Amino acid sequence: MFWTFIDAAQMSDGQVTIGGPQGHHLARVLRVHPGERGVAVANGREYQLEVVEAVGGRVVARIRGDRPVRGEAHIAVTLLQAVLPNPDFDAVVEAGTAVGIRRFIAVQAARSISRPPAGRLARWQVIAAAAAEQSHRGEVPDVSGPLSLSDALEQVGGNRLLALEPAAAASLVDARNGSAAYAIAVGPEGGWTDTELSTLREHGGVPVNLGPRILRARLAPIVAAAILVQQP
Amino acid sequence: MFWTFIDAAQMSDGQVTIGGPQGHHLARVLRVHPGERGVAVANGREYQLEVVEAVGGRVVARIRGDRPVRGEAHIAVTLLQAVLPNPDFDAVVEAGTAVGIRRFIAVQAARSISRPPAGRLARWQVIAAAAAEQSHRGEVPDVSGPLSLSDALEQVGGNRLLALEPAAAASLVDARNGSAAYAIAVGPEGGWTDTELSTLREHGGVPVNLGPRILRARLAPIVAAAILVQQP
Repeated sequence: MFWTFIDAAQMSDGQVTIGGPQGHHLARVLRVHPGERGVAVANGREYQLEVVEAVGGRVVARIRGDRPVRGEAHIAVTLLQAVLPNPDFDAVVEAGTAVGIRRFIAVQAARSISRPPAGRLARWQVIAAAAAEQSHRGEVPDVSGPLSLSDALEQVGGNRLLALEPAAAASLVDARNGSAAYAIAVGPEGGWTDTELSTLREHGGVPVNLGPRILRARLAPIVAAAILVQQP
Repeated sequence: MFWTFIDAAQMSDGQVTIGGPQGHHLARVLRVHPGERGVAVANGREYQLEVVEAVGGRVVARIRGDRPVRGEAHIAVTLLQAVLPNPDFDAVVEAGTAVGIRRFIAVQAARSISRPPAGRLARWQVIAAAAAEQSHRGEVPDVSGPLSLSDALEQVGGNRLLALEPAAAASLVDARNGSAAYAIAVGPEGGWTDTELSTLREHGGVPVNLGPRILRARLAPIVAAAILVQQP
């Protein structure tokens, strides 16, 4: 069973034709074969496919039915994640996509040890796309940045903003308020600086903790997002 | 700031003496120095320490105060985790300890691809101990197994048993019932077999899902445990 994201333009007459790098991946890497079933997602719908032909780097499949996507969380979570050393940021994008994060914005924080080279953003986007297929998401999360914290915050106006801070008085669980859109700001291994915490508060950020245990920077955003999207 | 677990016998006259492998780790690997602060945990209490001497592989520290441990979750979670290929099981023990799991029981499931060699249990215990220090736990989680599923289930009588199963009708969030002790059974990458699911149900196991997205076997138990320990 394969899972892939396509453009609506790739569909016609009840068939889907997948070429390019995606067709290559399906035909040559996953080695899909005639008769194999899969799903293609386009414009918020899941199309059930049955492969008719897989020749060279091109896959043709018949559409057997469709329905609205089911893999998107009802609660939209944007993660403002401070840049982490490799491979930790990659791991956050991969696991964060699986738990349902809608949008990642990399933040160049004061205590971010590394500074991503040009091309790193493209790599993160590839990781998000692969993880969205693996986890059967209804869309590929958006990944952008790195931005300054202020610029990143400009992008999430209107979201309920939670700033992860181990010393915070309130817990993330108690800071949920039924909002449909959260932004979580998660610092680097050394945490946010006081200046950054002030900036977060000025933008309405509520400092929250994840309990008394210390979580690695690569694990904290995953736990935070998993709790938010599972909000009853 | 270091964090270590000691026996009460290592304390006397307001001082703690740490030798053996632990002393070596503190003195030679972490290179603690006189004046440095840390915490030693014994018998459910955190002792605030100040290092007096660190010579060879032996550390002597003065006790500056103590209080009950704060790093233990109020809800006891036992993870019955099917054996996973390396390094996935290691990663589950490490992250699971950080999120607060009390007890890990490795299960040799029908679809577990790997079979841990002798000595693997000792390795998992070392990982749990290191992760407990890193995350500032109040005790080192117990790790045992691998056991058969039936033998593992004998060990968690009295716990509310949740069997992770992507096709389950109920969500883990909705299956929480205010219990103080949960056991979660998480299968290998290929899932539990029908026979194993029957065994789980015979032991009172409630099949639960973590939502419509597919989580890797190494991520699912972490998300499940994080949600359970954060139960309001």
